[in-house]
Amino acid sequence: MDRKRIRKLLKDIKAGKIEVSEAFRILKYLPYEDLHFAKIDTHRDLRKGFPEVIFCKGKTLEQTTKIVKRISSRNEFIMATKAEKSVYEAVKKVRKDAVYYETAKIVLIGQRKAKGSKKTILVVSAGTSDQPIAEEAAVTAETLGNTVERVYDIGVAGIHRLFDNKEKLFNADVIIVVAGMEGALASIVGGLVDRPVIAVPTSVGYGASFNGLAALLSMLNCCAPGVVVVNIDNGFGAGYFAGMINKIGAKK
Amino acid sequence: MDRKRIRKLLKDIKAGKIEVSEAFRILKYLPYEDLHFAKIDTHRDLRKGFPEVIFCKGKTLEQTTKIVKRISSRNEFIMATKAEKSVYEAVKKVRKDAVYYETAKIVLIGQRKAKGSKKTILVVSAGTSDQPIAEEAAVTAETLGNTVERVYDIGVAGIHRLFDNKEKLFNADVIIVVAGMEGALASIVGGLVDRPVIAVPTSVGYGASFNGLAALLSMLNCCAPGVVVVNIDNGFGAGYFAGMINKIGAKK
Amino acid sequence: MDRKRIRKLLKDIKAGKIEVSEAFRILKYLPYEDLHFAKIDTHRDLRKGFPEVIFCKGKTLEQTTKIVKRISSRNEFIMATKAEKSVYEAVKKVRKDAVYYETAKIVLIGQRKAKGSKKTILVVSAGTSDQPIAEEAAVTAETLGNTVERVYDIGVAGIHRLFDNKEKLFNADVIIVVAGMEGALASIVGGLVDRPVIAVPTSVGYGASFNGLAALLSMLNCCAPGVVVVNIDNGFGAGYFAGMINKIGAKK
Amino acid sequence: MDRKRIRKLLKDIKAGKIEVSEAFRILKYLPYEDLHFAKIDTHRDLRKGFPEVIFCKGKTLEQTTKIVKRISSRNEFIMATKAEKSVYEAVKKVRKDAVYYETAKIVLIGQRKAKGSKKTILVVSAGTSDQPIAEEAAVTAETLGNTVERVYDIGVAGIHRLFDNKEKLFNADVIIVVAGMEGALASIVGGLVDRPVIAVPTSVGYGASFNGLAALLSMLNCCAPGVVVVNIDNGFGAGYFAGMINKIGAKK
Amino acid sequence: MDRKRIRKLLKDIKAGKIEVSEAFRILKYLPYEDLHFAKIDTHRDLRKGFPEVIFCKGKTLEQTTKIVKRISSRNEFIMATKAEKSVYEAVKKVRKDAVYYETAKIVLIGQRKAKGSKKTILVVSAGTSDQPIAEEAAVTAETLGNTVERVYDIGVAGIHRLFDNKEKLFNADVIIVVAGMEGALASIVGGLVDRPVIAVPTSVGYGASFNGLAALLSMLNCCAPGVVVVNIDNGFGAGYFAGMINKIGAKK
Amino acid sequence: MDRKRIRKLLKDIKAGKIEVSEAFRILKYLPYEDLHFAKIDTHRDLRKGFPEVIFCKGKTLEQTTKIVKRISSRNEFIMATKAEKSVYEAVKKVRKDAVYYETAKIVLIGQRKAKGSKKTILVVSAGTSDQPIAEEAAVTAETLGNTVERVYDIGVAGIHRLFDNKEKLFNADVIIVVAGMEGALASIVGGLVDRPVIAVPTSVGYGASFNGLAALLSMLNCCAPGVVVVNIDNGFGAGYFAGMINKIGAKK
Amino acid sequence: MDRKRIRKLLKDIKAGKIEVSEAFRILKYLPYEDLHFAKIDTHRDLRKGFPEVIFCKGKTLEQTTKIVKRISSRNEFIMATKAEKSVYEAVKKVRKDAVYYETAKIVLIGQRKAKGSKKTILVVSAGTSDQPIAEEAAVTAETLGNTVERVYDIGVAGIHRLFDNKEKLFNADVIIVVAGMEGALASIVGGLVDRPVIAVPTSVGYGASFNGLAALLSMLNCCAPGVVVVNIDNGFGAGYFAGMINKIGAKK
Amino acid sequence: MDRKRIRKLLKDIKAGKIEVSEAFRILKYLPYEDLHFAKIDTHRDLRKGFPEVIFCKGKTLEQTTKIVKRISSRNEFIMATKAEKSVYEAVKKVRKDAVYYETAKIVLIGQRKAKGSKKTILVVSAGTSDQPIAEEAAVTAETLGNTVERVYDIGVAGIHRLFDNKEKLFNADVIIVVAGMEGALASIVGGLVDRPVIAVPTSVGYGASFNGLAALLSMLNCCAPGVVVVNIDNGFGAGYFAGMINKIGAKK
Repeated sequence: MDRKRIRKLLKDIKAGKIEVSEAFRILKYLPYEDLHFAKIDTHRDLRKGFPEVIFCKGKTLEQTTKIVKRISSRNEFIMATKAEKSVYEAVKKVRKDAVYYETAKIVLIGQRKAKGSKKTILVVSAGTSDQPIAEEAAVTAETLGNTVERVYDIGVAGIHRLFDNKEKLFNADVIIVVAGMEGALASIVGGLVDRPVIAVPTSVGYGASFNGLAALLSMLNCCAPGVVVVNIDNGFGAGYFAGMINKIGAKK
Repeated sequence: MDRKRIRKLLKDIKAGKIEVSEAFRILKYLPYEDLHFAKIDTHRDLRKGFPEVIFCKGKTLEQTTKIVKRISSRNEFIMATKAEKSVYEAVKKVRKDAVYYETAKIVLIGQRKAKGSKKTILVVSAGTSDQPIAEEAAVTAETLGNTVERVYDIGVAGIHRLFDNKEKLFNADVIIVVAGMEGALASIVGGLVDRPVIAVPTSVGYGASFNGLAALLSMLNCCAPGVVVVNIDNGFGAGYFAGMINKIGAKK
Repeated sequence: MDRKRIRKLLKDIKAGKIEVSEAFRILKYLPYEDLHFAKIDTHRDLRKGFPEVIFCKGKTLEQTTKIVKRISSRNEFIMATKAEKSVYEAVKKVRKDAVYYETAKIVLIGQRKAKGSKKTILVVSAGTSDQPIAEEAAVTAETLGNTVERVYDIGVAGIHRLFDNKEKLFNADVIIVVAGMEGALASIVGGLVDRPVIAVPTSVGYGASFNGLAALLSMLNCCAPGVVVVNIDNGFGAGYFAGMINKIGAKK
Repeated sequence: MDRKRIRKLLKDIKAGKIEVSEAFRILKYLPYEDLHFAKIDTHRDLRKGFPEVIFCKGKTLEQTTKIVKRISSRNEFIMATKAEKSVYEAVKKVRKDAVYYETAKIVLIGQRKAKGSKKTILVVSAGTSDQPIAEEAAVTAETLGNTVERVYDIGVAGIHRLFDNKEKLFNADVIIVVAGMEGALASIVGGLVDRPVIAVPTSVGYGASFNGLAALLSMLNCCAPGVVVVNIDNGFGAGYFAGMINKIGAKK
Repeated sequence: MDRKRIRKLLKDIKAGKIEVSEAFRILKYLPYEDLHFAKIDTHRDLRKGFPEVIFCKGKTLEQTTKIVKRISSRNEFIMATKAEKSVYEAVKKVRKDAVYYETAKIVLIGQRKAKGSKKTILVVSAGTSDQPIAEEAAVTAETLGNTVERVYDIGVAGIHRLFDNKEKLFNADVIIVVAGMEGALASIVGGLVDRPVIAVPTSVGYGASFNGLAALLSMLNCCAPGVVVVNIDNGFGAGYFAGMINKIGAKK
Repeated sequence: MDRKRIRKLLKDIKAGKIEVSEAFRILKYLPYEDLHFAKIDTHRDLRKGFPEVIFCKGKTLEQTTKIVKRISSRNEFIMATKAEKSVYEAVKKVRKDAVYYETAKIVLIGQRKAKGSKKTILVVSAGTSDQPIAEEAAVTAETLGNTVERVYDIGVAGIHRLFDNKEKLFNADVIIVVAGMEGALASIVGGLVDRPVIAVPTSVGYGASFNGLAALLSMLNCCAPGVVVVNIDNGFGAGYFAGMINKIGAKK
Repeated sequence: MDRKRIRKLLKDIKAGKIEVSEAFRILKYLPYEDLHFAKIDTHRDLRKGFPEVIFCKGKTLEQTTKIVKRISSRNEFIMATKAEKSVYEAVKKVRKDAVYYETAKIVLIGQRKAKGSKKTILVVSAGTSDQPIAEEAAVTAETLGNTVERVYDIGVAGIHRLFDNKEKLFNADVIIVVAGMEGALASIVGGLVDRPVIAVPTSVGYGASFNGLAALLSMLNCCAPGVVVVNIDNGFGAGYFAGMINKIGAKK
Repeated sequence: MDRKRIRKLLKDIKAGKIEVSEAFRILKYLPYEDLHFAKIDTHRDLRKGFPEVIFCKGKTLEQTTKIVKRISSRNEFIMATKAEKSVYEAVKKVRKDAVYYETAKIVLIGQRKAKGSKKTILVVSAGTSDQPIAEEAAVTAETLGNTVERVYDIGVAGIHRLFDNKEKLFNADVIIVVAGMEGALASIVGGLVDRPVIAVPTSVGYGASFNGLAALLSMLNCCAPGVVVVNIDNGFGAGYFAGMINKIGAKK
């Protein structure tokens, strides 16, 4: 319930257009409704053009398409993450305009990306196997209207490739580092630049990587300040957060 | 070695003022020196007014004061974190202008805070015992020139206190949430606002909190997008990162 | 051996109807038999109408149907949990009256639910993927004769949906909260109401959720008093315990 | 803001006693204030006679006494848990009526226990070293107005002592089991009775008990239904929850 | 090289039948060869009638049958553990006399069990799903020539079934307890009898059982003395150790 | 309640010496009392000469001496484990005949060791720091009447010292191996002999020994059959179990 | 950029063959390019004859063949590790000269092994299931031009087989020990010889081996000095490091 | 027993100087004695000049000095690691020639370092708090006769300092990297050079460093080949292993 509606309600009472008992009934649920709308309201500018997001993992095809249908009525733009190709194919039957980003495992439905920002997000990834998560981050950030640069396959054993891309490294506003195994790439990048670095540990690796735990702990203990961490394989979260940072700058 | 010096060197060769062999000797270490200075150079504006930081935990009083003395010659401003009172007292003997933030366990030496930014960082903390880490974040952010608001003691069992501070919550540019035990406060704040939230798990708790592990995992799994995590008890890292975000906005 | 039978035995000895040696033989195994029956006896009223329960996971179809047959002779009512559809189909061949709750993965055989109680159990769940466990809890509680309300899909990022259901929240006698990922919903509900909250962590999530560990630790560290925890994915245990609480109230 | 005040406000608008703009200003913060008071209001009967609780661990003596003073103005009854003797002595200086339960490490200040309930809570503990946590649970439950029975020192190696107390076991409305090491006592009690069992793992033990982890996992995996778990060493939580269950019964 | 051969060698030197250089060459490898044979020698009586054991898990069918063939030449009796039915079928082609214990997943080849001992080993198991491991222990112990009693399906929730078998419980020389989930059965049995109890945690369970970790930790922390533990799901190890204990008694 | 008393009771009823109601009252608690006495009775021979055991860790001096006094009335022989010197000194005041085994941290009170058995238990330990646990095992076994041999300081880096003691190794009936760090000594001994080996992991070590976890896991995974494991630092449990094995042999 | 090129650049400036601005542009990226080439340069002799390595796990067949094609143009020799047979078959279509080491799961493409060294690397493995990792190490070392000896199937229960191969043990320059389960073989070998021992824990085992964690911790805690550890199942890393050690010796 | 003594024994038999029975008695323990001496013998050249090592942690002052005295008789050179100053002071009373390396916590007694090798070991450490472990490695390597270079305080945030020391980095034969927190320095060094890198994780750090676990896992997962790992804080092991590598080269 927005402020205009409350003011109108109060005026209607005063004008005798509405009974006190009826007004009371309306106000009774105000705290909760207001909270609901307030949130959307407050952040309308940030959310403008941003899709409703469906996390597909652990949902049946049936559940996912049902959610897509339900949201379709009220949302122009829908994004589905961790979506296997079969999800895309099922959704495609419901919404012809669905587009699939195969490596990123993202399905986008409806109105495409917001208009471009001049701020740049650089996505750096360590190995070939880290690319799906890197792409998830990149496509998410692009969907939020950011300019995204990609520098992939920067293993620690080939750190010079990072230096080959120093222009991108020093020009980016925000950097997302995606790495599995020992996750040291986040530390190296964090030690070279003074940009906000969002580190995404991946489950890539074997043995004592313990499905991403090694990279996660490594990144959390990064001694270079300016590095924060999201969940293992959470490319979406990193892309979303990077976009948020850029919005803040843009807002002023 | 900065660019001007390289250009001059090249010109001197051309002009015959310097021998090739001598020029080669100078250039030999260039890759590394250059890297060194490039870094400082590129980020001079960000770093302006920011202190050299000493992490005191695990260092002897002797080591810490020795470092302070060494840095004193080249730095106007020094910040020491995780500093017990005894550290302050030892440093005080070396530098009369040292100031102690007791709760934050921070010692500041030399030139005070950078001039204020209009961007606001809100530091929200869960319990009384989380305050030292919350203060570490707050003092760090203030030292970086940010305006900092504090909302402390917002336990999950007293969540209404969060709503009592909704103005601060919705007005902040960046929010730092400091919480131990189950760390749910980060999820609640992340679910209410669409600002970047930096979650700091603390080691506050007992039993199955496993020294902050419960809060850390909880925060990493936060289902509200827009929440990133730093190491357990790393208030400094959160304050630093929040300041970085604000700088990016300020730069444009 | 119940009390009446013991008294009669003693009287029969006194009356000379039975020899001491024969009476001794009967009493010899008394400690164990008595313990056995005592238990059923003492709690007869609680157990009235409650099914024998078979945990299907890790059992072959053959084992499960064999157990169903064996119990059928002495029990009017059987409940099978964590039952895949194939379990239902196998059991159906043995007992025509088997009914399948697909989402809850529960098979009920024989006499349906106990007569309704006026006490209400509210089952709140966080995400779509948590529903199977939420339904397991709900169907279990209904089977025990409780009135069950459901409020599903209350993610932390959509906490306002919780407030939309405040009537149910404040009217419930016991609340079961089912949540994976960071499990913060239990803390939020526990902080809002002063009803007993039974938290069920689920294995829903990825990366650092470590198959439910994050939610489990989060819930165990809940700083709001009045929250207890059951095993990861143990919807049955939560439903059963909630029913137990209601019975206690009913008994007086 | 309670309902009466809102109704009056609406009537005052109608009656022209208050301006719309002024009414709007008052209502503006309603969602949050209402939430705040609603909570206290809804549960007033449950909370009647229950103390404000201070968790002392990790707080300085200074912090604790400051909190006691601040609460003193608005609360008749204060309870401090995990309070070392030094806490009691510091609090005693501020509040002469403070009483110390040494084993339970609880300080009670102000109006004593609520009037007794006929419902009984049985606290069973495994070893001598588990007593402090058992007493924490027991004193908490008594403070809430429950009748509490204690059966201590029931080690698995002396399980017969449990049977020596079968009357108490079968007569209790709720049972709290406090055990460290392997925590099997919860399973044994849960297997014998059909009462709600609240299991409290303790950090008692050594080696592979890993500070209570073994007991915690054991209790969470209890195959007897009707057993729920609280955090390691959380006697207060168990006592509070047990009291909650009894209140529900009492309310009808 | 056995003692007789060494004595003969020495005598031959003395008698001049062999040169010192030749004797030296023979003795050169003595330390290692002797160690080898000494072992077999010392324990010949214990090993008599015991099969060569092949652990099948992680071996291909090809590897397993190759090993069976190789051992066949020197061993009368072969035992293959953790053997899926496909292993049995492959082995059957090589050795017609192979026999399969399906639940125990054991293949026995060649000379059947050693002649019966009067010592009795009792195998107690908690749930239906624990039976494969319980049978592995039982069949192993029988193969070693022990009399084995089985008491299965003694869940903590049906502890009275344990008392129904008290004769077996008190008459056994050694008891093997096989249990997953919380593994409390080992503590209960260990608390009732003063026989050596060998506890076998199983991976049966879900959620916080963490594939047997809960049962393992519980059993290691058993406060009843007289309980030792083997690896998760190591029924063979328990059966073997129990047989070893009985041999020691028999030897005197 | 033993059998004689039950028979007498039945006869008394028949003879009219006791009323049915009185007999019923006596029999009512029979299941529990009988269980109690049955246990002590059944194992009287095993327990003969064995002390009541007090685990001192986590108990105050006051608690320990109180327990000693209470047991003193009914027990000739008391053993206190994990007893610091201060415990001994406190107990000494209560019982003049207390004797302290300093390295083993054991206090023995009253009648000394049972008469010697011809069975031998060998205690092998890895390093100097493992000796306290090794001595705890050794003194416990001696107290149970076993002949105990000690071979200490057999590090993996000095494995030859094990061979220097091969006579003891091959002559022992049961072997206890006490080792911290990587715990490999248990595997080595288990691979050399075919005696029952009881492995005691100790918390000796640093870094990735994680307080004995490395040794514990290593010992549980021992591929030599015939090795069982007790809790970290549980020398008492190993000594007790070894004694139990020898008793079984002795009984026949 | 190598030194010759820099010298030439400087001379060209002096000679007026190149403009200062152009020279500056070339030198601008020098730090990074130089770093790149420097590395290759410095270690050319070590790398001579060593293949480019592709880690196949987690890569699609398509990705792997694409990488093979890309590297083919600049590399004479390619090595693919953790390569399933399907990888080999896919690569074979692109490069006819691909050879598959099935047990080692290694594909070699192009120029075969470097010419043999007189230095010997001994690969010792514990069980049949450890062979794939042992072969990975052995084939890697051979590919690097080392002479490799293999001693497989040296279980702790058959330690004498180790002594049967003492010549190989004492003659090797470097020893690689590959073992799963408790990993004690590394300690045993490390205790017998004073050669560098590279321990490779494998994921072979079950239950509390926790996929190689037990072996890993055991090896890290090895009390014999001279033992270092690589990641679980990292046969390649061990083979590579062993070859590196031999090269160092060879270089002098 | 060395070869000369065996040959002499055989000749004495032949010459009739010794009886066969006496010769047999001497040879009986040969396998074990020989093993003992063989080891020392085989590696005499490696061990030449190397001290007997005492690990002081967990030993009492009394135990340590007793060991020093015992070894003094047969060893010219003793090294005590993890030795607090109090250990040095106690040892000093027994051996006047004891020297203390305070940072390294090493006491050296007797004949100083072996004569210098031309091979160089570089010890790189990350932070001030890592220095004690770095020094432990360095002093150990020097004691073994190696030339040791030190490059300390190379944090990831100051990686340029590594490049400032590139000469040392590229000239070293073996590199030891000592780092706590995220341990990324090992990856960086391993990615830059093709020398054997021995990584030593330290327990330096806080929060999610979990006492060195983060650094340990990070180092084990290092994707640059040529990096091996030792236990957390095991500077001695790294120094010893590095020396071993150099000896191998030296031997040829």
